[in-house]
Amino acid sequence: MSPIITLLTDFGQSDSYVAEMKAVLLGSAPGALLVDVVHDVPPGDIRAAQYLFARSWHRFPEGSVHLVVVDPGVGTSRRALAAARDRHLFVGPDNGVLTPILSQAEVVALEVPPDASPTFHGRDLFAPAAARLARGDGLRALGRPVGDLHLTPLPAPRREGHTVVGEVIYVDRFGTLVSNIDRQLAGDAATASVPGGHSAPVARTFGDVEPGALVAFVGSGGMVEIAARGRSAAEATGARVGTEVRVVLRG
Amino acid sequence: MSPIITLLTDFGQSDSYVAEMKAVLLGSAPGALLVDVVHDVPPGDIRAAQYLFARSWHRFPEGSVHLVVVDPGVGTSRRALAAARDRHLFVGPDNGVLTPILSQAEVVALEVPPDASPTFHGRDLFAPAAARLARGDGLRALGRPVGDLHLTPLPAPRREGHTVVGEVIYVDRFGTLVSNIDRQLAGDAATASVPGGHSAPVARTFGDVEPGALVAFVGSGGMVEIAARGRSAAEATGARVGTEVRVVLRG
Amino acid sequence: MSPIITLLTDFGQSDSYVAEMKAVLLGSAPGALLVDVVHDVPPGDIRAAQYLFARSWHRFPEGSVHLVVVDPGVGTSRRALAAARDRHLFVGPDNGVLTPILSQAEVVALEVPPDASPTFHGRDLFAPAAARLARGDGLRALGRPVGDLHLTPLPAPRREGHTVVGEVIYVDRFGTLVSNIDRQLAGDAATASVPGGHSAPVARTFGDVEPGALVAFVGSGGMVEIAARGRSAAEATGARVGTEVRVVLRG
Repeated sequence: MSPIITLLTDFGQSDSYVAEMKAVLLGSAPGALLVDVVHDVPPGDIRAAQYLFARSWHRFPEGSVHLVVVDPGVGTSRRALAAARDRHLFVGPDNGVLTPILSQAEVVALEVPPDASPTFHGRDLFAPAAARLARGDGLRALGRPVGDLHLTPLPAPRREGHTVVGEVIYVDRFGTLVSNIDRQLAGDAATASVPGGHSAPVARTFGDVEPGALVAFVGSGGMVEIAARGRSAAEATGARVGTEVRVVLRG
Repeated sequence: MSPIITLLTDFGQSDSYVAEMKAVLLGSAPGALLVDVVHDVPPGDIRAAQYLFARSWHRFPEGSVHLVVVDPGVGTSRRALAAARDRHLFVGPDNGVLTPILSQAEVVALEVPPDASPTFHGRDLFAPAAARLARGDGLRALGRPVGDLHLTPLPAPRREGHTVVGEVIYVDRFGTLVSNIDRQLAGDAATASVPGGHSAPVARTFGDVEPGALVAFVGSGGMVEIAARGRSAAEATGARVGTEVRVVLRG
Repeated sequence: MSPIITLLTDFGQSDSYVAEMKAVLLGSAPGALLVDVVHDVPPGDIRAAQYLFARSWHRFPEGSVHLVVVDPGVGTSRRALAAARDRHLFVGPDNGVLTPILSQAEVVALEVPPDASPTFHGRDLFAPAAARLARGDGLRALGRPVGDLHLTPLPAPRREGHTVVGEVIYVDRFGTLVSNIDRQLAGDAATASVPGGHSAPVARTFGDVEPGALVAFVGSGGMVEIAARGRSAAEATGARVGTEVRVVLRG
């Protein structure tokens, strides 16, 4: 089987940066199967990248290599990492973007090749490392084990009586508000709301409410989401990343 | 040969939804060749998706599986379909988006897997079905034959003397206005116009008019199009989807 | 090994044009590995396409076929070309977009197939030619050698005493200003500036200045770039393509 290499970056789609990374990957790991995750992460938005990374990597087959380059600190002293966990492999900067997998991973620090462009480690440092992992090189061949990693965990929701108080951590293309309140915390929830009096019944899916109405459910990534049937909940409520979300539990 | 699976969705390119579908496809049909058609269909725009689907699927090699997920009704009782026609295979919701191929296709209804996310059938229902078809499973193995399908045919142009009256059904990136008047209806056309006094000579291609001028021709999808050489006909005329198009025939 | 075919166009990502080209490529060159370079080149912007092409093609493995379709003159008498150089192959219109490789290339003119859409040579002329090259057909099998090619070289910087005067030729997603002044011309540069009093020290990378500050360096494509650490230099300075860039050399 061809090894899979996924790419998640903030390089956008109007520059040649992603293609230059792919050129390196295909040159060093011929036959690798390259899969774009997202390249339109807002520039330097580690939090958004972390969310997209957390919900997607584990859906790929074991043996996949995940290349995550949202790297506003390129050209500073931030470290570069390769990691292994659950038979998946990972490459990216030590700026928190790999937080979702680091706690249970084996991690090494990558050396910067002497001829690497100091402003494009995606192409000259991370892609070559991913290609080596795809070819079967062991993690230890790429660098020395490191600890004391830079972690940027999601803000933790808190419990206030029968209410769980969290916040919006992501807004998707459809304007759906994704919270940091997961399935277990939500338990037997009755409503979810954002400020401004925007309250939604917790249901199973869109079909449970009228067109245009707000509805909350445990979304496809396992978190409580507030959506609007047939329109954007973000537009309907004015909520955005960081807005408080309150989930009221039954009884 | 690797089976080809094409993907046409309105999931955009800033979320991980397409990548999660690809993860499922590559996990269930290893070796499949995934080809993006378009993911930037405006959210829920079945008409635009239908146009893009109609003009592209038949250009792929026989045996291709076409996964079309523009599905504003996810989480309602709309059915999910798989279909076969002309040695191509298709998967998508029963909301009209598959209209271009359904009339001459063998069609079955898909069962929703019990553990499917009720808000992400693209990943949990349609992608697994497409993977099975790519692996060679027969259509009948996926579900029971169904009829009474939801069809959303294009508005039909009408004839008024020497004029064919249709409408704009799509506007492309270059601002070219695509009509619902096909090559046969257009026959020996002299001019094509949109309201506001914007008339274009029917010619063969851009080179037949001066830079900046309007020109009409039978476009690469077989329909009469009104374009402007070197600029956007949509901007020049103010026309958009639904605007009336009048094609005047010679003699 | 699967032959690689790269695609660089201004067809955007909301229409089916790129997918239709890929359908032709996969039908005619089964097993080819298709790699998108960029499709979001501004419509008809030959200069931007030329920059993206120049910095990316040579990073792909030898034997790659590069399909470049930014073709505002489709439907006029502009010629269509295939070319070979340094064990890479190229296909595109004779409008200057292939300038970066033409001077040292073997070049032939392509014949337009009689059934080609006169408005979509990307699908009906260039993609079939690229597929033939990917299958191993020789350049001479595709057309007759031609000279007198349409070249659109970059504006040349000029030297004024200890200053090199160039201009911005590209602005990337991050707002970094790429100039036409290369590593050799820049020599031992002290500062780079754009009008309005925006001067940046020439350093090695972002980490050499404070967050928010302007910094200049030789970028990953080999040209002097002016960036701002953690923000957009284009926004900070108001500079854009064509803005004068002055690099002051040391002593």
